[in-house]
This record gives sequence, structure tokens and C-alpha cells, in this order.
Amino acid sequence: MYELIIIGGGPAGITAGIYAARQKLNTLLVTKDFGGQIAKKAVTIENFPGFEEISGMDLIQKLESHLKKQEINIERKEVIKIEKVEDTFFVYTKENDKFEAKAVVIASGADPRPLEVTGEKEFIGKGVSYCSICDGPIFSGKDIAIIGGGNSAFETALFLSNIVNKIYILEYGSEARADKENQEAVEKTGRAEIITMAALKEIRGDKFVNSIVYQNRETKEEKILPVEGVFVQIGLQPATSFVKGLNILNDRDEVEIEAETCQTKILGLFAAGDVNIGQFKQIITACGEGAKSALAAFNYLKKLER
Amino acid sequence: MYELIIIGGGPAGITAGIYAARQKLNTLLVTKDFGGQIAKKAVTIENFPGFEEISGMDLIQKLESHLKKQEINIERKEVIKIEKVEDTFFVYTKENDKFEAKAVVIASGADPRPLEVTGEKEFIGKGVSYCSICDGPIFSGKDIAIIGGGNSAFETALFLSNIVNKIYILEYGSEARADKENQEAVEKTGRAEIITMAALKEIRGDKFVNSIVYQNRETKEEKILPVEGVFVQIGLQPATSFVKGLNILNDRDEVEIEAETCQTKILGLFAAGDVNIGQFKQIITACGEGAKSALAAFNYLKKLER
Repeated sequence: MYELIIIGGGPAGITAGIYAARQKLNTLLVTKDFGGQIAKKAVTIENFPGFEEISGMDLIQKLESHLKKQEINIERKEVIKIEKVEDTFFVYTKENDKFEAKAVVIASGADPRPLEVTGEKEFIGKGVSYCSICDGPIFSGKDIAIIGGGNSAFETALFLSNIVNKIYILEYGSEARADKENQEAVEKTGRAEIITMAALKEIRGDKFVNSIVYQNRETKEEKILPVEGVFVQIGLQPATSFVKGLNILNDRDEVEIEAETCQTKILGLFAAGDVNIGQFKQIITACGEGAKSALAAFNYLKKLER
Repeated sequence: MYELIIIGGGPAGITAGIYAARQKLNTLLVTKDFGGQIAKKAVTIENFPGFEEISGMDLIQKLESHLKKQEINIERKEVIKIEKVEDTFFVYTKENDKFEAKAVVIASGADPRPLEVTGEKEFIGKGVSYCSICDGPIFSGKDIAIIGGGNSAFETALFLSNIVNKIYILEYGSEARADKENQEAVEKTGRAEIITMAALKEIRGDKFVNSIVYQNRETKEEKILPVEGVFVQIGLQPATSFVKGLNILNDRDEVEIEAETCQTKILGLFAAGDVNIGQFKQIITACGEGAKSALAAFNYLKKLER
């Protein structure tokens, strides 16, 4: 029986682990791998305070080694189910383990939803990006396309409007779904052209992206846009399939939490980082939430003990 | 006229500055000095993810140099007043400046409330601490005293109960003011002795703390307790005197915010780090809030522009 089980090995899970171990909680961290979304970053990270420039791999290595310096149990396994019976959580893995704990932090992260078009995988880190705040500055003065027409696509456009030259927003439907105020704000930048009924067909390039091909879904006409960057903003896929039964997810499959403590509506169950509803999904905010969730779990456990 | 003014140069203000600058906001950061509470830390920081061990001075230097790599205006001045007139904030300094901006992040931090007894200043970092989560592990197996009887004192005792040998909690009044559940949880550790009606008179030591002297306020008797650590937990003093007029503070002078965006009840006015109501006041949570507040300010500004 552990006091705390942390699920996930990205920045949120690792920070939760460091904090839990320093509080001498008997802690198990279960993760398939370390790094979370950082591991997929092909570009330098410049917005984690304290590191002016650091590669994703180097940052993961530092975080992982910081974690492993603590007294903490680590299992490289995949969680497939969580159950709570009275005050005890049962955590089941694909490898047939059944771990027990009094509190759980879910930090299993999220993945950008991929487009699944030709050229996408090939040009990740070479013009294809899933995070404007991380990668935007690389595209200074260039023409770029954003794929998607929701709030995150328009917020990406707003962010990039201060950096890039021209922005194409490709929306699959007949009109963008973003809030009016987001749409009006993007219009006001004077840098964005919204192309509706657009189905992306291909991302092309040589060493780096140099154009995209899309089809107008009405006329069936195919067009080529010369762009050096493609920002895919069709949403994230939170890694929450293993908690589907707990009724703690919103309609985007994100874990709903109380922002100040990161606690879900199930007492003793916390969620930190990209897996939860927080609107600003950054490495540093994930770390902050990891610390919060571990400290809140600690308070919960100590009150439970009495 | 700036787009954003950030007040404060600790981890929250610096991270807000890095994020604001990367969003190309025309930003001014006003601070008396850099580092906030980190600057006062005499011990190594071991809970900032990515740095297994780093001195306060080294971490400040890294944060400050990261900030200064950005395009951002910095004024080493002291803010004495903020006003909002229609959509514009006016920020006044002791040095008679009047800066204008459309949004403001308050990140002016807090200071531990000092006891003001003989020996306190002398032994800071040599047995006297204001942060158990930061410094606790140093006192492994030792006897320590906690000064204060509120929730933060009892939470400090809970935290240290897994680390130290014996804990004395010195409460000035006739009974501790902490929540019942906190008091019961502390009792259950079996490590804590609560001494009420205790007025601390002196902290004594050689190179490090070796005892404290307190007076029983009823009997007037003076007693000596042999302890190697003294945790002062009589509260924080948020640096919020310059916003007293805005009606955004709670009864502990902390800025009230909506946790998800760090926005105060005044639109366009945000607060990050130890200055706000957040219950977990850590360097990494301050950084997370700095990032959040800058991103939320950015969204606010872009919507304001239309």
C-alpha cells in the first residue's frame, strides 16, 4: 500500500514526484516513458525559466535525473484503470499489476491531435508545429498556415500576428467555430486570411516546409499555398481513457479540477498538467500544478490519517 | 503607453516578463530588485525542477539573465500606487514616474513576517527558517521549534513530522488557532508538543542555533528549550501596500484572484506568486502563475484592441 501514486512522467508528474518524495510520502510513480510532450519537441525550449535555451531531450534528462535523486518508487508501466473503494485507490496496469494507494495524482498528459495527412510526420520540427507559444518566434516574418478554426486556432493566430508576416487559417467547415471576440480580434490584426471549406491534403517541402495543398470542399478545386510553417490546432487528446469510468472528464475528455488545489471531484484524486482543464498548457504551468497537486495530496493524506 | 506593466522581479514577475516579451507585448517590468524571496534564501534550493541543487543566488542569476535576453523594458524603481481610469492603468513610483499600460501583473511578492527577537536575524540560514518545505530536509532527525499556532504553523508541523525527531509548537495565546483537523492530524503524529501562552524571547546558538528561550505569559517563568531549528510561521506580509485603494485584497492583505487566469476582480489586473491568495507558495508555482498571468493578460489585451 502506497500513500501516493502518480501516473505520468512528464513535467507535471516529475514535479509531483519530487515534491511528494521530499515530503517523505511513500510514493509510486507509474509511467510508460519520461518527458511527456517535451519528448516530441524538435525545437529548442526557450520559455522554461532558468534555461535560456535547452533542447527537449536535455530538459527531460534534467527533470528525470532530479526525480531519480529522490526516494521514490518508479514503475515503467501503462495504467489502464483506476478504481476507488472506500478510502483506497486501486491502480491497474496493462502488465497486470494492481497497485494500492490512499491518493492519486493523474499527470498522464495529452497529445496534439494529428491531422494525418501526407508530409505531416516528416516535417515535424521542420515547419510543422503544434505549439505557437513554444515555436512561434522561429517563424518571424514568414508566411504560415494554421489548420483548425476553433478558439485555439484563433488564439494561435493572435499570438503569431505579432511575429509572422501572413497567416492563413484553414477551416474545414463553412465557418470558423471560434468565439466572435476571438474572430474579431484576429480580423483586426490585418494579417490573417480565413479560408473555409478547406480540406488539407498535403504538406510539402524540401528540408523544410515550403507549401501546403488543400482542396475546396465545395468546388473540389485543389490549391497550393506557399507557406514556411504549418500550425496544427485541431485540439489535444488528453490521455484519459483509463479514467473514463470515474465521471471526472469534461466533453473534451479533460479532467475537471478545482484550480487552486488541482483536486478532482473525487477526494484524494488530483490532476496536474495537460491532462486537466487548465487553459494554459505550458511546461512551466504543468510543473507548478505538479507541485500544487503533491502538496494538496499531502494535506489530504495527513487529514485522512487521523 | 505600454501594453503591459509587470510589478516585481521575483520568479513570478520574471516568468511573466519572459512570456510577455515572447508574445511581443510592449512590456515594462518595474522592480526594486531581482529574486524576491529567493534572494533571502541562505540554503540550497532542491525543489525547482530541472536543478537538483542550486543556490538562491545562482537561480536568481539564471532567471534574471533569461529575462534580460528578451525584448523588455526594465525600471529599477519602487511602485507606490496603481490607478485604473477607463481602460488605462496608471502606475506611480516613489521616484515620481507615472507609467501607463492597458494591463498590469502584480508580482510584488511577500516577506515572512519576522518575530523581531534577539538572535533571529543572526541565525537566518543557520537554524532559523521561514519555509519548511524548502529547508525541512536539513533538520532530519533533529529537535525543532515552530513559532506560531495558526494553520501554516500546524501544516509546517505536519510536513516536518516525517523528517525531524521532536517538534515544539509555541503559541502566544491560550490555544492554537489552527483548524481542528490540522490540530488533530498533528497530534496523531506523536511528535509534537504544543506550548501555549509562550512568548519567544531569544534564539541562542554558536555557529548554529542550539536553543530558544521563551516566557510563560501566565507564570512569567522563563524556560530554555534545546532545539537545532526554529521555524517562524507567524504569517507572510504580502507586498500590497500600493494597491490598498483598489479593494482587491483579502483580510490577510493578499490579492484575491480567479485561480485559473490569475485575474483580479478588476479586468486587466492580474496577480501572480506569493502576493496572491494561492495556498502553495513555492518558487515553481510562482513561475507557473507568472506564465499564466502573462498569457491571460495577452488574451485580455487582444480582445480589448478590437
